[in-house]
Amino acid sequence: MGETHIARRRELAALLAGRDADAMLVTRLVNVRYLTGLDSSRAALLVPADGPAVLATDARYAGTAERVCPELPLVVDRHVTDALLARAAGNGRARLGFEAHDVTVEQHAHLTERAELELVPLGRPVEELRLVKDEEEIALLREACAITCRAFDSVLGEIRAGVTERAVAIALERAMVDHGAEGPAFATIVASGPNGAVPHHRPGGRELQNGDLVTMDFGALYGGYHADMTRTVAIGEPAAWQRDVYDLVRRAQRAGIDAAVPGAESKAVDAAARDVIAEAGHGDAFTHGLGHGVGLEVHEDPFLGYDKTGKLRDRVPITAEPGVYLTGRGGVRIEDTLVVRAGAPDILTTTTKDLLVL
Amino acid sequence: MGETHIARRRELAALLAGRDADAMLVTRLVNVRYLTGLDSSRAALLVPADGPAVLATDARYAGTAERVCPELPLVVDRHVTDALLARAAGNGRARLGFEAHDVTVEQHAHLTERAELELVPLGRPVEELRLVKDEEEIALLREACAITCRAFDSVLGEIRAGVTERAVAIALERAMVDHGAEGPAFATIVASGPNGAVPHHRPGGRELQNGDLVTMDFGALYGGYHADMTRTVAIGEPAAWQRDVYDLVRRAQRAGIDAAVPGAESKAVDAAARDVIAEAGHGDAFTHGLGHGVGLEVHEDPFLGYDKTGKLRDRVPITAEPGVYLTGRGGVRIEDTLVVRAGAPDILTTTTKDLLVL
Repeated sequence: MGETHIARRRELAALLAGRDADAMLVTRLVNVRYLTGLDSSRAALLVPADGPAVLATDARYAGTAERVCPELPLVVDRHVTDALLARAAGNGRARLGFEAHDVTVEQHAHLTERAELELVPLGRPVEELRLVKDEEEIALLREACAITCRAFDSVLGEIRAGVTERAVAIALERAMVDHGAEGPAFATIVASGPNGAVPHHRPGGRELQNGDLVTMDFGALYGGYHADMTRTVAIGEPAAWQRDVYDLVRRAQRAGIDAAVPGAESKAVDAAARDVIAEAGHGDAFTHGLGHGVGLEVHEDPFLGYDKTGKLRDRVPITAEPGVYLTGRGGVRIEDTLVVRAGAPDILTTTTKDLLVL
Repeated sequence: MGETHIARRRELAALLAGRDADAMLVTRLVNVRYLTGLDSSRAALLVPADGPAVLATDARYAGTAERVCPELPLVVDRHVTDALLARAAGNGRARLGFEAHDVTVEQHAHLTERAELELVPLGRPVEELRLVKDEEEIALLREACAITCRAFDSVLGEIRAGVTERAVAIALERAMVDHGAEGPAFATIVASGPNGAVPHHRPGGRELQNGDLVTMDFGALYGGYHADMTRTVAIGEPAAWQRDVYDLVRRAQRAGIDAAVPGAESKAVDAAARDVIAEAGHGDAFTHGLGHGVGLEVHEDPFLGYDKTGKLRDRVPITAEPGVYLTGRGGVRIEDTLVVRAGAPDILTTTTKDLLVL
């Protein structure tokens, strides 16, 4: 991915001039990863508007940095921002952009103390670049989603009455690793019976029972990219109300996905799904936004909700995950990861959305 | 733990007067957890110097908050700091302490804009309180360490030539969960043969071979507390140099643990272990500090290193983890989690430190 990262840094450098900055200090680790390929817990990157970027990391990651971005000058120092600041100052740069949503007040005071530079908050230029994914990123996300689907298929036989939510969650997470994931992309949700009414229920000791709907929200991490899928299944033959709610959520999800075209407003995509649920009288039971972007973070821009601004673009991966939550009774959520595309959306989580009766 | 958390908040409130603050806004999530018991990804706590504290979290965690800290007034709002700031302002408080090591420049600008309050950086009073553990915390850490040891014992039979580092790491992490852990406390390290020379090696596809030393650094998360243990084993009969290095690291660790008494200076404890290694001519091969505090974070104060200040105190859990890393050949690290105590240290990771030959 060397060429890819060079191109990303070039794009960022081009943005800087427009924001009246001579260079940018990138400290948010996921952004450093995006711009260099280095996945670490301590690193920072200095990107000048012109001239070569410089990476700093500590001795633990020096070997990895030399391997994944050999083209980048590397400073090995525990004090990554200090080391880069010294470099920036030495080059006589005047206005240094920084990530105000990442740098703490304490760090900022420290930087200000020693800088001959003017520190300028720049907004979120790297997140802006990350919004639209390139084909390499989409390929990684596609594999993350494929692993997620294979893992689900492989544990279906273990999802039955008498098994605890926690056991199902562990089985899903282990199956994802066995199918090639680096790990789970986030803490797996398994919510059975009445617990299904809690969107972010933590899987616990409750045993699945006949008559339950069981909502499983999980995903694989692969190459740094986060899959996110939810399926709701029935344990034993579902009651009529359970089928009705399931069909409703499925129709809502379909409407949301159909609306997710390049140029669509985020709030309009959310509304397309929400209106279906509201018309059926369950508007109050869909208590969260329709979805969110996924990529190097499991929740990233764009966010789809009734109060969100902005428009979708080609090659933006999002989730579509409407839910209906009925306190005391249970809930249904159905979620796919898909890529917004001109023409038709590219749905990456291909597992069936027919109601499975286990 | 309701009483415990009430007492912790009372201690924090008592600290505030001495720092000339009328209240403190706690935003660091691990600190909110310490003061309330609530483990969440969005919460903040307002602690006045006098009067009751107020907790804010979003709807996802409202039910949990009502269960774990029913005594606390609760504001359910996605904008947790805004909600608490409104509360603080309404009470006519003038000087509001905040955590400058947690609040970003962007958040600070937002808070400043709307505050009739003066925002005052307060240092790290909650971390100061967290340093010395109470008996409930030590009991949780003890169980985390016991799980870690049981997991290690249960996978010893799987550690043999032909198995990959990654498979050993997965086996250890799964065994910890099977023995009661919430999950691994951190990403497990398994470093075999020459990889053992890299202190933070990520387990990969290398297969263990006869003649390897294999270093495994892992720990269980239990009740929010982080165990941290390293053992190095031999695959097949070790060479003389391997036994020598092992014995050296073991003696260094013993010296470090013996020095870890209440009142000892952090750098003196580090030196006690380091001197043993240096005298054997391997001083350059021990490339990190002797250890660190553990608790609600896997790395927290106090840090033990040649350049660290401060003194150990009774009931402070630390790790003691000297290592010798020989580039191209391999390495040895031996690590325990222990509690500094008057009299004798309380070693929580009780697995044998004899060199196991597998």
